[in-house]
Amino acid sequence: MAQAPKEYSIVGKQTPRIDAYERVTGQAQYTGDLQLPGMLYARVLRSNVPHAKIISIDTSKAEKLPGVKAVIHHENAKVPWSSGGHTHRRYIFNNPVRYVGDPVAAVAATDRHIAEDALKLIDVKYEKIPHVLDANEALKPDAPKIAPNGNLSVGKGAFSAPIEESWGDIEQGFKDADRVFEDTYITKHVNNAQLERRVSIAKWDAGKLTVYASTQGVSNARTDIAKDFALPLSKVRVVCKYMGGGFGNKNQAQDYDYMAAMLAKVAAQPVKLEFTREDDYIGMHGRWASEQHYKVGVKNDGTITAVSLDAVTNMGAYRKQSGNLSGTDFYNIPNFKKVIKPVHTNTVVAANYRAPAYPQSVFGFASFLDQVAFELGVNPLDMFMRNRAQKSKGKLPFTSNYLEQCILEGSKRIGFSEKWHKPGATAGPVKHGIGMALGGYPFRPGLGAATIRVNPDGTAHVLVGVTDIGTGAKSTMAIIASEALGIPLNQIQLTNGDTDVTPYSVGESGSRTTAFTGPAVVAAAEDVRKQIFALASAPMKSKPEELDLRDGQVFRKADSAQRIALGQIVKDSGDLIGRATTNPNFPKEMDGKCFSAHFAEVEVDTWTGHVRITRYVAAHDSGAILNRLTAESQIKGGVVQGIGMAFSEELLIDKVTAIPINPNYRDAKVPTHLETPEVEVIFVEHYDPYGVFGGKVVGEPPITAAVATIANAIFNATGKRFKELPITPDKIVRAVQV
Amino acid sequence: MAQAPKEYSIVGKQTPRIDAYERVTGQAQYTGDLQLPGMLYARVLRSNVPHAKIISIDTSKAEKLPGVKAVIHHENAKVPWSSGGHTHRRYIFNNPVRYVGDPVAAVAATDRHIAEDALKLIDVKYEKIPHVLDANEALKPDAPKIAPNGNLSVGKGAFSAPIEESWGDIEQGFKDADRVFEDTYITKHVNNAQLERRVSIAKWDAGKLTVYASTQGVSNARTDIAKDFALPLSKVRVVCKYMGGGFGNKNQAQDYDYMAAMLAKVAAQPVKLEFTREDDYIGMHGRWASEQHYKVGVKNDGTITAVSLDAVTNMGAYRKQSGNLSGTDFYNIPNFKKVIKPVHTNTVVAANYRAPAYPQSVFGFASFLDQVAFELGVNPLDMFMRNRAQKSKGKLPFTSNYLEQCILEGSKRIGFSEKWHKPGATAGPVKHGIGMALGGYPFRPGLGAATIRVNPDGTAHVLVGVTDIGTGAKSTMAIIASEALGIPLNQIQLTNGDTDVTPYSVGESGSRTTAFTGPAVVAAAEDVRKQIFALASAPMKSKPEELDLRDGQVFRKADSAQRIALGQIVKDSGDLIGRATTNPNFPKEMDGKCFSAHFAEVEVDTWTGHVRITRYVAAHDSGAILNRLTAESQIKGGVVQGIGMAFSEELLIDKVTAIPINPNYRDAKVPTHLETPEVEVIFVEHYDPYGVFGGKVVGEPPITAAVATIANAIFNATGKRFKELPITPDKIVRAVQV
Repeated sequence: MAQAPKEYSIVGKQTPRIDAYERVTGQAQYTGDLQLPGMLYARVLRSNVPHAKIISIDTSKAEKLPGVKAVIHHENAKVPWSSGGHTHRRYIFNNPVRYVGDPVAAVAATDRHIAEDALKLIDVKYEKIPHVLDANEALKPDAPKIAPNGNLSVGKGAFSAPIEESWGDIEQGFKDADRVFEDTYITKHVNNAQLERRVSIAKWDAGKLTVYASTQGVSNARTDIAKDFALPLSKVRVVCKYMGGGFGNKNQAQDYDYMAAMLAKVAAQPVKLEFTREDDYIGMHGRWASEQHYKVGVKNDGTITAVSLDAVTNMGAYRKQSGNLSGTDFYNIPNFKKVIKPVHTNTVVAANYRAPAYPQSVFGFASFLDQVAFELGVNPLDMFMRNRAQKSKGKLPFTSNYLEQCILEGSKRIGFSEKWHKPGATAGPVKHGIGMALGGYPFRPGLGAATIRVNPDGTAHVLVGVTDIGTGAKSTMAIIASEALGIPLNQIQLTNGDTDVTPYSVGESGSRTTAFTGPAVVAAAEDVRKQIFALASAPMKSKPEELDLRDGQVFRKADSAQRIALGQIVKDSGDLIGRATTNPNFPKEMDGKCFSAHFAEVEVDTWTGHVRITRYVAAHDSGAILNRLTAESQIKGGVVQGIGMAFSEELLIDKVTAIPINPNYRDAKVPTHLETPEVEVIFVEHYDPYGVFGGKVVGEPPITAAVATIANAIFNATGKRFKELPITPDKIVRAVQV
Repeated sequence: MAQAPKEYSIVGKQTPRIDAYERVTGQAQYTGDLQLPGMLYARVLRSNVPHAKIISIDTSKAEKLPGVKAVIHHENAKVPWSSGGHTHRRYIFNNPVRYVGDPVAAVAATDRHIAEDALKLIDVKYEKIPHVLDANEALKPDAPKIAPNGNLSVGKGAFSAPIEESWGDIEQGFKDADRVFEDTYITKHVNNAQLERRVSIAKWDAGKLTVYASTQGVSNARTDIAKDFALPLSKVRVVCKYMGGGFGNKNQAQDYDYMAAMLAKVAAQPVKLEFTREDDYIGMHGRWASEQHYKVGVKNDGTITAVSLDAVTNMGAYRKQSGNLSGTDFYNIPNFKKVIKPVHTNTVVAANYRAPAYPQSVFGFASFLDQVAFELGVNPLDMFMRNRAQKSKGKLPFTSNYLEQCILEGSKRIGFSEKWHKPGATAGPVKHGIGMALGGYPFRPGLGAATIRVNPDGTAHVLVGVTDIGTGAKSTMAIIASEALGIPLNQIQLTNGDTDVTPYSVGESGSRTTAFTGPAVVAAAEDVRKQIFALASAPMKSKPEELDLRDGQVFRKADSAQRIALGQIVKDSGDLIGRATTNPNFPKEMDGKCFSAHFAEVEVDTWTGHVRITRYVAAHDSGAILNRLTAESQIKGGVVQGIGMAFSEELLIDKVTAIPINPNYRDAKVPTHLETPEVEVIFVEHYDPYGVFGGKVVGEPPITAAVATIANAIFNATGKRFKELPITPDKIVRAVQV
C-alpha cells in the first residue's frame, strides 16, 4: 500500500478531542446555552393543514398579550429564503402553505411560555386546496399542483429534474447479460434526529446582524443571510462554537435563523428562537424517501453487464437538495443508466441527511445484488468482490482504491466464508444470519482558508471557519496544524466558527472539512514556517531552507542536534502570522472516493420478529486516518444511524389529515444503546496522494452500507427478502410465519 | 510644510467612531456587563494600616458564611505579580503590608453583598512597623525601610535609580549665563480617575485561563499572566472589547486580574472581581507626586544656557513605573543635567497616568521659565519661542517639528500679544490673565501585527489586538485599513482585543497604538492587495503591478476607466487573507516627537479665589491627523485632565493614620462640565515621513502643557506665582489678599 512520505508526530495517533474537557464538564457553550442581555424567546406557528391558501391572519390578540414583542407572518415579513436551490420561490412564510408544518407565523416574547401562549391566539383562516402525499400520485397529471410548474421538482443547475446519468450502452449491456432481473425497493422519510435541537439567536447592532446559529457552516450561512437580507458580508456575523450534531439538516442558514433575525429587527431586541423536538422533526427536513426500480443484467457467474435505475424520490413540499440516489457508485457497471425523479408532495421537506443520496439506494441496490446472487447461486462475498468498483463511472481511475482490501479484511475478521449458510437454513426459532454490503462516499479537496499565529513563546493559535458538528473537526484541524507546524498539539489553541474572526470554510457537510480546510491549514503553517526559518537563519547560522521545525524545536536538517527552541527564536517578534487560501488542483481525469465493506451477523427471533445484531464489522478505506479516536467514533455513529433506518425509523404521516404522527425520538424510534452492537472498525490505511497527510474522508461513508448490510443479514437468517424499510418486527413475523 | 504623497480617501476626514452606535445605545458590552454562567463575585480586603507585618489571618468565619466559595490571602495564594519593573519582589498579597490599601485578602461569593460581608469576617492581626509618608523624609538614613534595599527605588534596567541624564557641559552652561535662577515646584498624587472602574472576570477551562479584563493591552496582559501563572501563551486568553478609559493605570495585567484568576481556580467557577471607586483610587495607582528643584542659566534676552533638575518623585509603596520627569523635552537646552530620585513611601502606589513623566514637570519647568521671563522682563511668548526645541537632546534632528507653527498659530488665534499685560495689572476684583506653555510627547513606531480578510463580496474584516481605551483606536485602525486597502470604511468590520483571535499588539499606552499597529495594518493590506491584483490580472488583462484598488474598484493605473468591482474579482475565492508583523526601521540618529503650544485666558476672582477659564487654545503638531473627530476629542480630554490637576485634584492622605481621605470623584475633585471651557483645537498638519499616512501621535500630548498653561495664566492675572499644585481657591485668596 502507498506509504506516507515521512513519519508523523501526531497524525495517525489516538488523540482525545481538544475540547473534551469543555464538552464533558458542561463548560462548552452550545448555542442554546447563550444568553444575551434583553433577549426574547421565540416560537413558530405551523400550518395544521397540508395545502391551503391563507385567507386571513389575525394576530391582534397575540400582540395584545403582555410580554409579546413581535409577531411576524407572510404579510409583514416577506423575507426570501433562497438557501440551496429550489424550484419555486420560497419565503420564510409561504402562502399557500404546502404541508402540515409549514411555518405560518413566529412570535417573540419575554419568555417561552408567553410565546407559546401567543401562538394559540393567532387566528388563521385557511382555504383548503386538495393535497397529495404519495410521490407516484403526485406525478399524475391531475394531481394537485404543489409547485407552480407541477410536481416534478424542476430547479436550476444542480436542481434540474429528472436527474439523469448514463454511460456505456445500456441496451447492449442487457443483451450481453445471461440473465436480467428487475425489482423495486422502497425507503422512507427518516429524520436526522441529532441530539441538539435547532436554536438561533439573532441580534442587530445598527446595520449589523449577528446570528448565533446551530449551523454546519458559518461561512455559507453568512452568505445566505447576507444575500436574502441584502447586507454586505462584513455586516453579517455568524457564530457557532459547539454543536450537538447536524447530519446535514443544519447546513447553511435555515428559515428559523431568518425568523429570529426578522423578529429581532421588529422587536429591536435580541431573539432566541428554539425549536421543540417536534419542530425539529417537521420544521426542517429528513432523508428523502424513495421508490427505486432496478433492472440488472448479469452473467451467470454474477458479473454485472448493465444496470438501469428508475426512481422517484419524495422531496416534500419544497426542494432543498438534489434528491439523487447514488448507491450504485461502489460497483463496476460497464453500462449504466439512471433516471431519478425528485417529486413534490404535501409532506415534510426532505433534503440532506448524512451521505444524502446513499443509504437509501445502497439498501436498494446491495439488497438486490444479494438477491441476484441468491438467484444465481453465487455466494454474496463473491458477488460483491467480483462487481466491486475499480474505476469510477466505468472509466476514471480513483486517487486510491482499497475496496478489495476492505472486503478481504472485513470478511476475514467476521469469518464470512465460514459462517455464511444457505438463507434461512439455521434452525429456529432464533435464526442466525450474516450479510454484507459495500459503501463509501466521494472525496475531493476544495476551497479552504486558515490563519495561524505563532506566539512569542512558540505556542500557536489556529483560526479556521469550520464548525465542529460532533465529528471532532476542531481536533482534526489542530492535529493537522500541529503536524504541519512542528509544534506539539498541547501548545496549539484553536478558534473556529465565527465569521468575524475566522476565515472562510466551505461548510461542514459532505465530508468536506478535512479535505477542504486541511490543505489551507498546511499551507498557512508553511507560510509561518518560512517566517520562522528566516528569523532563525542568523542564530542557527544556516540558510532558511536548511532548517526544519519539529516538536517545537528549530533544527538543521543536516544535523538535528543543532537546535534552538522555537520560543527562543520568536520571542521578540510579537506574533508571526501565516495565512492561506487554497484550492488544490484535482485532475479532471480522476475521481476520488472512500470505500467500505460492512459485515453483520444477526439473530432473528422468528416468534417476535426481533432482530439482534450480534456482531458488526466495518472495514473502511478512508486513506490515512488523522485521528483514530474520532474516526472510529464516526464509523460507529454512522452504523448506528443505519441501524435505526434499517429497523425502526420512519416519519409516519396520517393519510387522512396529513399530520405527521410520530415527530419525536420515542415514536420515530431512534435506536438506543439497547439496539446498538459494538462495532468493530477496520481502517485499511494507506496514503492517498490527494488527501491531507494521505487522508480521504470519514464522516459520511459509515452510514452508506449499514442498512443494506443488516437487510442482507436478515435475508441470510430468514430466507425472506425485505424490500421496504424499515424492517420492523411485524413485517418479519408476517414474512417468516407465512 | 511636508505634503502627503497622495490624496487620501478617508484619512484626514471627520469620521464618526465605527462603534458609535453600540456605545451610545448601550449595546456595547464592557467587561463589567459580561455575565458568565455560574459566575461568582469577588471583593478585596485592604490593609487599614500603612506598614505592618501580618501576624495572623483568620478566614474561618468568612469561609463559613453561606455563599462564600473562596478566600485567598498571602498564605494560600502566593502568586508573584511581576508586571512592569519593580524593586522588591511583589506578590498579589504582600506581607508586610506597605500602605493603607495594600491588598490583604480577596473573597469570591455567590453575590456581591455576601462577598462584602465576608470581608468583615476576616480577622487580621498586624504588628505595626513605623511608616513614612513624605518622600524627602523617606530618603533619610533613619527612615523606616519600605523596600529591602532602602527607599530609593533601585530596580533593574529601565527601573534603575536615580534616573540620570545629561548632555553638554552643565558647569560651562551656567558660566555662560548672564543670570542663574533656582526654584522648587511641587506636584501631588492625582488619580487617573477613568470612568470605568476596574473589573476582571476569570475563568478556567481545564488548563486554560480566560480573563475578561479592563486592560489597555491584551497581549502584554497575557504575557504577564502567562509568566506569573507559568502557563504557555496559548493557554491564556485575554479579552477586552470595550473600555471606559484607562489613562495608563489599566496597562497590562494588574493584581486584581490575578486575584480573579486565583479565586476562580480555588472556587472552580468563573469569578468577577469588581473594584469599587475607592478600590480604584487606592488599589491601583495615580500620577507620581514630585518635588522639582530647577536651576536655570539664561542670557539677558532669555536664551537658556543651562538647566539642571534635581527631583524626588513619590512612587508609593511599590515601584511599577519609571518615576521620571521629562517636562524639559520641549526646549532647546544646550547644557543639561537631571537627577531624579524615585522614592518609596507608605502611600498609594504611583505609576503611569497619561504622559506619565510630563504634566508634573511641564508645570514645574514652564512655570519657572515664565517666572524667569518675568524676572528678565521678557514677554513669555518671546521666551517660549526663543527656547523652543529645535533638536532633540540638543543634537538629534526630529522626524518633523512644527512647534514654531504651533506657537505662531496658537498665539495668533488667542491674540496673545494683544492681550498679554503686566502680571496682576488688570483691575479687580475679577482679574484677567493669559498664559501659555509648550508640551508634546515622544513618537516612535514599533512592533505591530494585523490580519485582514477580504470577503467574497469585496468587503473586509480587520483583526488587530488593540483595545480601544476611549481614544477611537478601533476607528483609527479601520480608517487606516480602509485607506490602505482601497475599500470604503463602511464595508470594513473590525475585531479587536482578544488574544485568541487577534494578533499581537504592544498595548494601548504611551500613544503607541497608531504608530505600532498602524504600519502592520498597512502591510497586511498590501499583502492582500497583492493577492487581489494577481486574481484580477486575467479579467483586467493587465499585469498585477499595473493595477490599483480604490473605493472598492480594481482599476488600471494607466486608465482608471478600466475597472471591475472588487467583489466581482474575489467572488469565488473564499477569503483572501493578508497578514503582517512589522517593526519599522527608525534611524538611530533621529528622534520623533509631537509638539504643542497651549494658551489660556482666565478670570481670577480675587475675592473667592475662583478661576474661570474663558478661552483655551491648543495648537498641536501631531503630523497628519487620521481622524479629526476623535483627535480633537483627545486634545479636549487631555486639557480637561490638566484642568483637574491644576485646580483641584489631589489624593489627600491623613498624616496620623495614613488613610487616604478622599478616594472618590467628589472628594478628589475631578473637574465637571462646569469647570471645563470649550477647547479650541488647532492641528498644524503636515506629513511626517515616519508616521502612518504622515501621522505622529495624539493621545498623550494634550495633557502635558495644560497645567502649566493655566498656572501661567493665573500668574498673569494675579502676579502671584503658585509653585505647588493644586492651585485651589484658598491658596489664591491667601496669595492675592496678602
